[in-house]
Amino acid sequence: MRVDQITIKSNLKDYTVNFEDNADFIKNLAQMPNSVFVIDENIWNIYKNTHLSSIPQEKVIVQPVCEDIKNIDTVCAIYEKIMQFAPRKNMTIISFGGGIIQDITGFVASSLYRGVNWIFVPTTLLAQVDSCIGAKTSLNFKHFKNLVGTFYAPKEVYIYPEFLKSLNVQDFYSGVGEMAKLHIMAGKEKAQEFIDALPKIDALDNATLSKMTHNCLNIKKSYIETDEFDTGKRNMLNYGHCFGHAIESATNFAIPHGQAVVLGMILANKVSMDRKILSKDKLKFLEDKILYPILKVSKPVLDENKIVQAMHQDKKNVGNNMALIMLDDNFETSKILDLQENEVKKVLAQLG
Amino acid sequence: MRVDQITIKSNLKDYTVNFEDNADFIKNLAQMPNSVFVIDENIWNIYKNTHLSSIPQEKVIVQPVCEDIKNIDTVCAIYEKIMQFAPRKNMTIISFGGGIIQDITGFVASSLYRGVNWIFVPTTLLAQVDSCIGAKTSLNFKHFKNLVGTFYAPKEVYIYPEFLKSLNVQDFYSGVGEMAKLHIMAGKEKAQEFIDALPKIDALDNATLSKMTHNCLNIKKSYIETDEFDTGKRNMLNYGHCFGHAIESATNFAIPHGQAVVLGMILANKVSMDRKILSKDKLKFLEDKILYPILKVSKPVLDENKIVQAMHQDKKNVGNNMALIMLDDNFETSKILDLQENEVKKVLAQLG
Repeated sequence: MRVDQITIKSNLKDYTVNFEDNADFIKNLAQMPNSVFVIDENIWNIYKNTHLSSIPQEKVIVQPVCEDIKNIDTVCAIYEKIMQFAPRKNMTIISFGGGIIQDITGFVASSLYRGVNWIFVPTTLLAQVDSCIGAKTSLNFKHFKNLVGTFYAPKEVYIYPEFLKSLNVQDFYSGVGEMAKLHIMAGKEKAQEFIDALPKIDALDNATLSKMTHNCLNIKKSYIETDEFDTGKRNMLNYGHCFGHAIESATNFAIPHGQAVVLGMILANKVSMDRKILSKDKLKFLEDKILYPILKVSKPVLDENKIVQAMHQDKKNVGNNMALIMLDDNFETSKILDLQENEVKKVLAQLG
Repeated sequence: MRVDQITIKSNLKDYTVNFEDNADFIKNLAQMPNSVFVIDENIWNIYKNTHLSSIPQEKVIVQPVCEDIKNIDTVCAIYEKIMQFAPRKNMTIISFGGGIIQDITGFVASSLYRGVNWIFVPTTLLAQVDSCIGAKTSLNFKHFKNLVGTFYAPKEVYIYPEFLKSLNVQDFYSGVGEMAKLHIMAGKEKAQEFIDALPKIDALDNATLSKMTHNCLNIKKSYIETDEFDTGKRNMLNYGHCFGHAIESATNFAIPHGQAVVLGMILANKVSMDRKILSKDKLKFLEDKILYPILKVSKPVLDENKIVQAMHQDKKNVGNNMALIMLDDNFETSKILDLQENEVKKVLAQLG
């Protein structure tokens, strides 16, 4: 049953996030005419005889998932499989999976017939709390992460917490990382709400997860509705991502995205403290109460030159220097464009 | 010098078409920072020592052009060449060429960093009078024409009639075909204006071509501004294209697009007459005064089964039947969704 709903306003087309507490919505999706399903292989294998059993198998494209498939070759393979259904422009692509399935099927949906209907059911916490709204699709190209992409939103998103049981610890806490980031960015009260909820998040309590996901999407909504095409305010959502992306890249994506973002927030905060816009007390509060408790990966061995090189490649840079989103003592974010190599190296050394 | 300007309103971002009467604008473009040029090889070879001589050669990607390159492989090759310039998100792609260059570079611009600045200088009449506005990009995929694409507009378009001197007769009259279509769709007066201008169009008179191009873009603007994403009224611009696309496909693109559209209008009018929405007089008027005078290809030998098959693949179809845009006696267009195979075969036989 639908227990809640958020509508996201978009320059392209408004869309809706539905919060569901049982699998009935999947039975409805299964009956959609002119539809084709693209489902994460892992999710399909776990749920094909239970929650997904109403979906006609012949309409399903089962997609194995790893970072290596997030590219144009996979997009082309899916175009080709979809064309075997002799589709029309009014077809609907319905996809189940995490961020990679979202990126691949979102790009396919945005570019097939210049845009077909798309319904997305995020099955990871990272996709539920963050990527499922915002209308971004991304593909890697050669060694450039997320170089290629489009702005395109699903028509409907369905949040169903049941799928989170398919996640391993690191992937679950990858989602918790972005959840923490959004609550911190919303200010002290929301950050405290996150801290208070943490024991129940750790216990995978469905009601708490649903409430916190709702918070996250509302916080993100306030950024993306005023800056859909990411030319200003929305940039701030990259708090933790400047270092985070570089860490992912330098470790060959061994660390789940949201966990790299946690490390990225720790590092960005250290720069903020060095630049005297974040006090040592606040930094300690964030590290002790939020960031370290949700860090579930061993501290990686980071090659400082690789990190610097990756940060120079950041899409957010506009000149020859590096960009960084910083947090201040009021939990407000700002962007600097003059981050120096020695600052990067200094905080990396402090990470130990 | 800029002699005229049209602004196109867009849900994505408004953009401007500039009419130029000399090449000074190219000198300005040549000085843009963070820019890379993608130029039709033919245009580059003709004009590199004259109109294009101000463009630094090291910033130019010279692109050989034919229908076969309008695909994702070429897009990827251009991504790769652009990445050698170590570009930033605030880069500008400046492209010179016809519809294929527009499609390729528009797709690249729309998908690189989820959209970078793009300036387009159409060098064919077809691109100047029609495709340069409307924000559509298209790629062929396997044997599916224009299956893949995005909605993305250039920031600026520059119309410079000088480039039309590079066109052969068939390519020039391909543009005249779309010019005729737009004037017919605008009603009897504009159709008559086209008929009166035809001798000067035939004589490649710059002022007339500029005036008629201005007409075309204003007519098209009225369709696309109210239906940018092509879900209703904009469909009507496909007058002549239902048969036209099928003819292109069945003849393996041996006929230039706008000339296939002329044949397509002739065939669509015959169906309209059979269905008694277009009188024999009006059909004759259109054929004798407009359509046959601008048809510069020999009537192709058309395999009726191939045409029917191609029309069944048309993106405009929404059910199992075929779609057709028809013209009536008041020069108004409407769309039918129940075109029958025997109607197609009948009018093909009449084409002789």
